[in-house]
Amino acid sequence: MEFKGRAAVNLLTSAFVLIGLVAFLVFSLRPEASSVEYGSRQKKTFAAPKHNVWAELSEYEAAEVNDFIIKQATDLNLTLHPKSVQDNFIFMVETLKPNKTDTAPYLYDDAPIPERWAKVTISQTFEGDPYMVYYMAGPLPISENSRVLPLEWMFNSGRNYVANPIQSYDIILEFALSMAENVSDITQELLGATVNRQDPSDPHGLLAFPRGSRIETGGMVLWMQFYRPGMGSGARTLLPQGIYAKVDATSANIAAWKVGEWYYNGVIYANEHEFRAALDDPDFVRTPANIDGSWTDTEDFGEYPDRDLPPPVSIQPYGPRYKLDRKERFVSWFGFEFYVTTAQATGISLFDIRFKGERVMYELGLQKAMAHYAGDDPMQGGLEFMDSFFGMGKNMFELVPGYDCPAYADYLDSEWHQAYKTHNMPNSICIFEYTADHLLSRHTAQYSVTASRNTFLTVRGISTVGNYDYTIDYIFYMDGTLEVKVRASGFIFAAFYTANNTKCEDEYGHRIHDALSSSIHDHVLNWKADLDVAGPTNDMVRTAIEPVTKTYEWDQPEQPARNTMHLVEYPVTEETGLDWPANSGEFYIVYSSEEKNAWGERKGYRITSGTGMGSTPHLTILNSTTLGESARYAEHDLWVLRRKDTEPRSADPLMYLAPHDPIIEFSKMANHESLEHGAPDTSYDGDLVVYFNLGAHHVPHSGDVPNTLMHTSSSSVMFVPHNFADSDPSRQSVQGVRLQLQGKKSGGFAGEWFTGDESKTLLRHNNGDLRSRSEGGNGQGKTTARYFGATYEKGVEVPLEALEPDMRGYVSHSNAASELNFTGFGRGEAFGG
Amino acid sequence: MEFKGRAAVNLLTSAFVLIGLVAFLVFSLRPEASSVEYGSRQKKTFAAPKHNVWAELSEYEAAEVNDFIIKQATDLNLTLHPKSVQDNFIFMVETLKPNKTDTAPYLYDDAPIPERWAKVTISQTFEGDPYMVYYMAGPLPISENSRVLPLEWMFNSGRNYVANPIQSYDIILEFALSMAENVSDITQELLGATVNRQDPSDPHGLLAFPRGSRIETGGMVLWMQFYRPGMGSGARTLLPQGIYAKVDATSANIAAWKVGEWYYNGVIYANEHEFRAALDDPDFVRTPANIDGSWTDTEDFGEYPDRDLPPPVSIQPYGPRYKLDRKERFVSWFGFEFYVTTAQATGISLFDIRFKGERVMYELGLQKAMAHYAGDDPMQGGLEFMDSFFGMGKNMFELVPGYDCPAYADYLDSEWHQAYKTHNMPNSICIFEYTADHLLSRHTAQYSVTASRNTFLTVRGISTVGNYDYTIDYIFYMDGTLEVKVRASGFIFAAFYTANNTKCEDEYGHRIHDALSSSIHDHVLNWKADLDVAGPTNDMVRTAIEPVTKTYEWDQPEQPARNTMHLVEYPVTEETGLDWPANSGEFYIVYSSEEKNAWGERKGYRITSGTGMGSTPHLTILNSTTLGESARYAEHDLWVLRRKDTEPRSADPLMYLAPHDPIIEFSKMANHESLEHGAPDTSYDGDLVVYFNLGAHHVPHSGDVPNTLMHTSSSSVMFVPHNFADSDPSRQSVQGVRLQLQGKKSGGFAGEWFTGDESKTLLRHNNGDLRSRSEGGNGQGKTTARYFGATYEKGVEVPLEALEPDMRGYVSHSNAASELNFTGFGRGEAFGG
Repeated sequence: MEFKGRAAVNLLTSAFVLIGLVAFLVFSLRPEASSVEYGSRQKKTFAAPKHNVWAELSEYEAAEVNDFIIKQATDLNLTLHPKSVQDNFIFMVETLKPNKTDTAPYLYDDAPIPERWAKVTISQTFEGDPYMVYYMAGPLPISENSRVLPLEWMFNSGRNYVANPIQSYDIILEFALSMAENVSDITQELLGATVNRQDPSDPHGLLAFPRGSRIETGGMVLWMQFYRPGMGSGARTLLPQGIYAKVDATSANIAAWKVGEWYYNGVIYANEHEFRAALDDPDFVRTPANIDGSWTDTEDFGEYPDRDLPPPVSIQPYGPRYKLDRKERFVSWFGFEFYVTTAQATGISLFDIRFKGERVMYELGLQKAMAHYAGDDPMQGGLEFMDSFFGMGKNMFELVPGYDCPAYADYLDSEWHQAYKTHNMPNSICIFEYTADHLLSRHTAQYSVTASRNTFLTVRGISTVGNYDYTIDYIFYMDGTLEVKVRASGFIFAAFYTANNTKCEDEYGHRIHDALSSSIHDHVLNWKADLDVAGPTNDMVRTAIEPVTKTYEWDQPEQPARNTMHLVEYPVTEETGLDWPANSGEFYIVYSSEEKNAWGERKGYRITSGTGMGSTPHLTILNSTTLGESARYAEHDLWVLRRKDTEPRSADPLMYLAPHDPIIEFSKMANHESLEHGAPDTSYDGDLVVYFNLGAHHVPHSGDVPNTLMHTSSSSVMFVPHNFADSDPSRQSVQGVRLQLQGKKSGGFAGEWFTGDESKTLLRHNNGDLRSRSEGGNGQGKTTARYFGATYEKGVEVPLEALEPDMRGYVSHSNAASELNFTGFGRGEAFGG
Repeated sequence: MEFKGRAAVNLLTSAFVLIGLVAFLVFSLRPEASSVEYGSRQKKTFAAPKHNVWAELSEYEAAEVNDFIIKQATDLNLTLHPKSVQDNFIFMVETLKPNKTDTAPYLYDDAPIPERWAKVTISQTFEGDPYMVYYMAGPLPISENSRVLPLEWMFNSGRNYVANPIQSYDIILEFALSMAENVSDITQELLGATVNRQDPSDPHGLLAFPRGSRIETGGMVLWMQFYRPGMGSGARTLLPQGIYAKVDATSANIAAWKVGEWYYNGVIYANEHEFRAALDDPDFVRTPANIDGSWTDTEDFGEYPDRDLPPPVSIQPYGPRYKLDRKERFVSWFGFEFYVTTAQATGISLFDIRFKGERVMYELGLQKAMAHYAGDDPMQGGLEFMDSFFGMGKNMFELVPGYDCPAYADYLDSEWHQAYKTHNMPNSICIFEYTADHLLSRHTAQYSVTASRNTFLTVRGISTVGNYDYTIDYIFYMDGTLEVKVRASGFIFAAFYTANNTKCEDEYGHRIHDALSSSIHDHVLNWKADLDVAGPTNDMVRTAIEPVTKTYEWDQPEQPARNTMHLVEYPVTEETGLDWPANSGEFYIVYSSEEKNAWGERKGYRITSGTGMGSTPHLTILNSTTLGESARYAEHDLWVLRRKDTEPRSADPLMYLAPHDPIIEFSKMANHESLEHGAPDTSYDGDLVVYFNLGAHHVPHSGDVPNTLMHTSSSSVMFVPHNFADSDPSRQSVQGVRLQLQGKKSGGFAGEWFTGDESKTLLRHNNGDLRSRSEGGNGQGKTTARYFGATYEKGVEVPLEALEPDMRGYVSHSNAASELNFTGFGRGEAFGG
């Protein structure tokens, strides 16, 4: 016991000494000896060369603009607390993107920064009818020089306003509830449910939503369909109930609206009484309803074989290789430089994209996102969404770290300003590098192998507009290639499927649940790409690869003529729409009119359908009744136009409200003006702009339930350097390895019998000072690895956070917005065009 | 001092006690407490349900077959040590893939295993002319029942042999060297170099290679071009020298061959004397030569900004989730099951692919890989390669771990047997999972977000045939989608560019170096996909999405008719070739003729151009002079044919030797036989087979120097389930997270104003027993994460090997093969068709 006691004392006595020993032992056993602390390198501080003149208004600026307009434009009689669109109020303030003619001198010639203005949307009543009216306010910051002006110059309709037919979405829904209450007995009988006015979202209740159709004599006709709310899953659009009611909404006065025909199971009833009476008919054919259940769950928590191990995951132990100026939202990555901005209608845009110091694009951004349905029921038959109306930027919700983007991604917030309030969308943009599962380039030679990793940079936002989630990527590759990619997920907007033979759902989709049809639709998302390939003066050509029969002198006399192929260049000499060519047989290339590479070839960028599924399509429907004039951009895959300050975009979000009389007419923009420049008879300076479409013909099938899958819903257009540089620029950026298989030779073709005389080979790759792992491998017959770009030199201790981010850091507590319900804007529900 | 001394003693005294303490402290601080040892989980042992009846012959089997034939077929007069194709010898032995009619009873009905036979290629002389002749030997193992038979039934030409015009490639090259020596004065004058007969690979010397043209009167004409060997980089095909010589090779006797015309800089000279004389002409126009230099290096070891940090990398801390039976080469992954095999000509094939227990494909594999050039010089003008002739399997060289495939990939070897010898290609196939940079599906709802990771399985091999590297992937997705993808890299086969105006290189390419034209060419790689969608009886349809003007009852009276779209199904009723439709406006779907899903829809798989660049193209050239009848499959994107035992493949590698009189005529296979089945007037049982093409119209540009880049050279076809299951099968496989943003609700559309009554919501997602990270997050207004599939629960200590594999493990010491040089097979050099 004495020993024990003494040992205990000694232990205490020597504790201070031993702490050092233990600390040393622990330290020496820590991974730092053999591995590196995760994320230990600091990000570089970094400043953009210019200010981001396209940046969205700050909260301060927005408030300043609101205050200024309220004080200044007293004639508008604006209210701060609108109750309906009968009240005049400022609906939206946002940055009025400056004209390129004003920014170019600032960006490229060090002229002063251009004036900053706000674009203002005011909900305003004329003679009792509500309109959305565009104004511009500026310059900012507000000073005595600032003023409020009608914003007309960017709309080729000559108007700065759009009539707003949605006098009150709240009242429409109220009307729908009353209508539904009047047929509670019918819905109870056919659907086993009724509306719950006290709690519209009662999962056991019903909802009704309208699809509107404007009619030539003025006003609207609405078709309402019943839905189960799907509050357990958010799957409302998978829960149509197959009862439809027609509402005569031709009157501006909602009190005068009347419920007319009813539609059920392919049969039209003149009114609810006939419908009710029909139920008692012994020949009345009932169809099952769509009941919410686990089949709409977006996840399955069950235990299944093989998923008891987590999947591979990408890590970035040393931090990013891009540089980010968060204030100016400027990114620099291996020669690429660009500014990021956002807008409430269109989400992320990029400006002033350069590669290795040369201009590539002035602007790249979404213009409009359209989904057009077809069907033989009153809902799907006329359904169409313009998601920029609901707001591709407004609906950029917080990204899920480690899932939507890698755990190591950088995040940016976005903001939008509506009705005097600033909405912050936290972590709604992510930026990250990723190493593909495949190389950028490789070659196996006789005595060596070289492999270069394909690490790319992505800027991503996800717009969830109601039922559907659009993941939008801007992707940059080391060779100068840019890609714009959309992947769709979320719930499809399905149709009610009637099981009898009076309908013909196979014409419009597949049956995918009890009473559910997959409802075919076209997605067409329009993008603007203002290419400035090595400067603003560009030409577009179609370079065709064509079959030809030719006679060659060296072929004589054995082969009098030869069936072969050759290149034929067709200049695009006027504004036009192009489709991706049959058999991918043409390259669409935008060339610099002035700059050539070292070999005398024009510097160019090729525009091509990219790595989405097949070729990107355009709209199937010809001269759509629903769309009217609002989406003529959707009629071809690609458009080449003159760039003009007065035509800054292909579409306006408010066109959704007036598709037949749009504030911007795309067909007036793409009106065959000459694209030949330099000739004395034209004032065109050669600055062209391209509009292109992404999207899909979506024929959903059972695998789209519950959610559309992104690996097959992707759509992409790429801009690929074509003789832009003198050789592949990625060689100076890429990380990779050269394996020296034997001695010092490189050699010819792998598998070849030549062995050659090593002493005579050009040992260009054998510099002794290269970083390599060649210990024991220097001799003949051993493999030596020589690396270019940085490699991992030690193991890494990866913290859990880098594998599985702690979701308690997720900022958003709900994705609910609770204002301006009456406008019907911003929720992505059925309204139709 | 006493204290100090005592302390020291005490320290020693108590050392044994303290060791325990230190060990405890160290242990508690070791990563195991907070992280997991990398790759600590053992792979599961796993056995295939059946034998791999398609497996390549083992070395033992190949030797057995060789011995048997030599003993048995004494009339063939075979030699073991051939010196030229004038000697009869066994050129190749490989597995004769069993007929589907023989394997199906074994696979699906537990019948006995089918007989195993070898396919044997014998180089054999008839009346002094060499032929390649096909035999079959078996059954294996060799027994008294085994026999050697002519192999005729799989060739619709009715022949089992192909005349071999390459009497001796060695002698041809020898001839070329002599020819070049005779003009050493000219080459020295124009190119600054001469051939070095003692060391043909002398980097300062020259080489000459032929392109052959068969002529109608028999025999060949060769055009030889001079190249610099490019031994420093392996870039020979970037180093054409622009001097060409025509060789009259019509005689079977090479001694009778004669050098005729010479071609330089667009001018033809009748013979070397005229050429030599022209040099002295003051008007003679010289062009620069292409000199090897750092511009052909496949890597740049220089120091460049930003690449001082290694890029992100994918890790797999817990091992793979697939199961692999290495002996049978059988893989099982989240419902997918398939067998892997290889062949010397065509590389990897997959057999008996099932998904969730249902049949999807019997066979999926490459048939032929063709590259067809065009040009106005004598070399490129008639150049064409059939890379299955050189061997897409023979040239599957060792993969670079951590680069060609992730560090954690599994590797398989492949083997081929030529001239009595077995060649092992170590680590030439890799299998791995990868987690994409984007999700498989996601949805943001009002109070929840669900994100599901897109982790896919890849089986990869890389065939480097001379200058070019084809990365070939078979990719599997959790929803049942399969993808076949080819990415090309390596050196292009460039043309000599003459700087004067007598030529017109712009018609055939771009100038990319001093005297180098990029030389346009088409790649067309043909694949067989024997689909058995839910069984062998299938129908193929084209489901078109077409514009239509329709009158709907519910549209009246406001909208008399409506411009919309609908689906129209066109059954494919006879064997035919299809092209990807304009505007992607048709879905090509193979449906089960018998099986339907729960909703009554036919189980199907859609065939679509996938995630390569745009749509996969087919051959530009119409009725190619060079190809003759050897590649009719290249004329359309996709073919649908009856599956027949007598038509097991679309092409044979030896067709390269006799393109105008092919041993397999594809146009006889695709000969419009009816695909309607079940009717009394047809014997067709409904088992169809699809052939499809991958590839590209390759218009290389400066960015292809030194190597073509894979991110833009990719080409893909996908097979996507279409109503195959009742809903998305990936839900049971996928790993992901559901974020509960607030309370327990799910809710409607994100951004919606409904809040609802939480007590009434269907709380299907709130099971208390789910694994989740909800500490502190259970209350209102906090985010709770609930995971499905396994997650990372601890940090991970990643060893260097998992980030940057030790290349000393690379087995190959050179990629040189040194036998049968005389055949001219297997090196991918110019020969042409």
